[in-house]
Amino acid sequence: MAAHPVSPLAPKSYPDLPPIAGVRFATAEAGIKYKNRTDVLLMAFDEGTVAAGVLTRSATSSAAVELCRENLPGGVARGLVVNSGNSNAFTGQKGRESVRYITRVAAQALGCAPSEVFIAQTGVIGELIDASKFDGKLDEAATRLVDAPWIEPARAIMTTDTFPKLSGAVLEIDGVEVKINGIAKGSGMIAPDMATMLSFVVTDMPIAAPVLQALLSQHVQTTFNAITVDSDTSTSDTLLAFATGKAPVDAINSLDDPRAEIFGAALADVLFELAILTVRDGEGATKQVSIHVEGATTDASAFRIAKAIADSPLVKTAIAGEDANWGRVVMAVGKAGEPADRDKLSIRFGDLVVARNGERAQGYDEAATSAYMKGEELEVTVELGLGSGQATVYTCDLTHGYITINGDYRS
Amino acid sequence: MAAHPVSPLAPKSYPDLPPIAGVRFATAEAGIKYKNRTDVLLMAFDEGTVAAGVLTRSATSSAAVELCRENLPGGVARGLVVNSGNSNAFTGQKGRESVRYITRVAAQALGCAPSEVFIAQTGVIGELIDASKFDGKLDEAATRLVDAPWIEPARAIMTTDTFPKLSGAVLEIDGVEVKINGIAKGSGMIAPDMATMLSFVVTDMPIAAPVLQALLSQHVQTTFNAITVDSDTSTSDTLLAFATGKAPVDAINSLDDPRAEIFGAALADVLFELAILTVRDGEGATKQVSIHVEGATTDASAFRIAKAIADSPLVKTAIAGEDANWGRVVMAVGKAGEPADRDKLSIRFGDLVVARNGERAQGYDEAATSAYMKGEELEVTVELGLGSGQATVYTCDLTHGYITINGDYRS
Repeated sequence: MAAHPVSPLAPKSYPDLPPIAGVRFATAEAGIKYKNRTDVLLMAFDEGTVAAGVLTRSATSSAAVELCRENLPGGVARGLVVNSGNSNAFTGQKGRESVRYITRVAAQALGCAPSEVFIAQTGVIGELIDASKFDGKLDEAATRLVDAPWIEPARAIMTTDTFPKLSGAVLEIDGVEVKINGIAKGSGMIAPDMATMLSFVVTDMPIAAPVLQALLSQHVQTTFNAITVDSDTSTSDTLLAFATGKAPVDAINSLDDPRAEIFGAALADVLFELAILTVRDGEGATKQVSIHVEGATTDASAFRIAKAIADSPLVKTAIAGEDANWGRVVMAVGKAGEPADRDKLSIRFGDLVVARNGERAQGYDEAATSAYMKGEELEVTVELGLGSGQATVYTCDLTHGYITINGDYRS
Repeated sequence: MAAHPVSPLAPKSYPDLPPIAGVRFATAEAGIKYKNRTDVLLMAFDEGTVAAGVLTRSATSSAAVELCRENLPGGVARGLVVNSGNSNAFTGQKGRESVRYITRVAAQALGCAPSEVFIAQTGVIGELIDASKFDGKLDEAATRLVDAPWIEPARAIMTTDTFPKLSGAVLEIDGVEVKINGIAKGSGMIAPDMATMLSFVVTDMPIAAPVLQALLSQHVQTTFNAITVDSDTSTSDTLLAFATGKAPVDAINSLDDPRAEIFGAALADVLFELAILTVRDGEGATKQVSIHVEGATTDASAFRIAKAIADSPLVKTAIAGEDANWGRVVMAVGKAGEPADRDKLSIRFGDLVVARNGERAQGYDEAATSAYMKGEELEVTVELGLGSGQATVYTCDLTHGYITINGDYRS
């Protein structure tokens, strides 16, 4: 399926997510760009399903993103159609018409209103999608709707991803089992401004759309919004959450309901796992890296510094080379444009203190640090010594693989 | 000299810059990091030489930058000492002491006050320089001071540069020949916040220090501040200009002197050529790229959008792959956080219109565009259609060479 070697950070196995009452799906091969693989996902939601979403803030967002933005205030969902291979972004009026056409075809296949259908598209930018490829495909897919296995939709939405990304949580609320299933795709153009390229989460929890939206907006900050592969923000970033409400439990209708926090925590776990999987399938990635910044003047300042480190090509190439080049971390702190005092700065790689108070740490152990850098999961901690602001950003290294994948993507 | 293959964008020959009255120099091998090459430059200025400079705004700037910041207000220079191989940045109190030690050794060798000596250091961050390596070296160098050839100082300051960078201008002021010679080094960690890693410009023009400073600060904006190799801003960025005043012509003592503009234009030419040479020796570069943004709401907004495009790894890898992937340019415009209207956006590669009014241009010629991408110097123009703001940023592509150089720099 993947044109590139599978990421060395791929999980050894995938979770077998359980069916969720109220949602069924089918995938299809529409030949939009890829051959001999599924590239279309159709999801059908039972009546009563509510929707929430977080969309890219890109000033050049895609037609599909625009349509989601239009439909989200309705808060109601009956269908979702997703295709990989063409993002249909920057395709003007014709792009908008093609998106409307596809959602009409989907609505017809599912027997619902077009305004109840959400759409997400991913792939090359600037090429008008051939909407006629959906003719018949969605009708036919609608005859094959099933509630498992979830790996099929996860596969259908992949582009340069080298493995499907799934995460699920089962929690107990009022003694009733409630499920949350999520899928996502990466794996380049990843610096979400509030969502990764595409991710879809479905739960059977009865929950009001505004509450679901609030929880989603809250937890995206420390999950999808805290990852970066290459600092490039997509035109198509879309995170949608759907709640079918089929679990036999009272609905959460307010954030003040104490169950909102419990449900939110489980939702955050799913989002976090999907976000980390996205980083671990970052184009060319061989290392997963967590950048912790502590002691900043504010959390927002800590986040911007962590992002500057995580986005620095020099930091990322050093990590790829298993080089404990903490001087480049110093550089990235310096360029972030945030308050920092060089002479209060300390840096740890894992538990190893490499720099303290503005210079190489006493007892710095090059051999131990080099050994640490050979690991697959690395932690870099920067202590600014200015205040109590903190943040964590998750990223991967920058390797020859990234250049190979992106120097020849369209052809 | 260079550990990496010479950039394919290296000039075929180097200018033979003329001697400038009032400045002499010598280079030496101090073995700071490199073997069998010069790594120290000592410049001696005659009495009456004034200095101006622009230094990094990094919050973690080096000890050498701090010392220049201290000495610049004096406006007087008698000496400059530069070393490659170790930037002595983030080395704490001991780093500051080493810088003071080296400038004292230089002052003694030149017979001047330490406050009249400027220093610049470049190379690895976080390793304390062994200041004793300068003992005797500078004394000995001071016995060999010459006024040519200028390629020697240009070579001594190189780090990962694959070619020396020189530029000169000879202009006539009041019927008198006035000279400006400049040298620079790159070639990674290049996203100057007001200067590239290191650049030194010397003129024999009599000019007051504040005027020289004003002209330097003005012209750095469209030259060194308009280039980026990898978005990473150095801790050591230093641009210094020295005016020996030896040309037999009345001094420029005010910006209102009409000759300030004439001299400034020649200075800008020298800075621009050095900046472009720095881009052309960007680590791993195989293409020189100019990003023009027009029709923005303001010049500053145009600059930020041009910078976002020039720093985008996806744009840079597409260019490396000779792929006319203008969709990634759209993406970068979208992520810049500046006013942009997708449906007014037009993009040209060279003279070829690839996108107009938010979609692929009518008559887009894939074959012609692909042929254009094979060129060594590329121009990307983005027309936003919002106002009259414009800016140009100069960059290079992102290739396997960059990864190779930076994945294994310290070892």
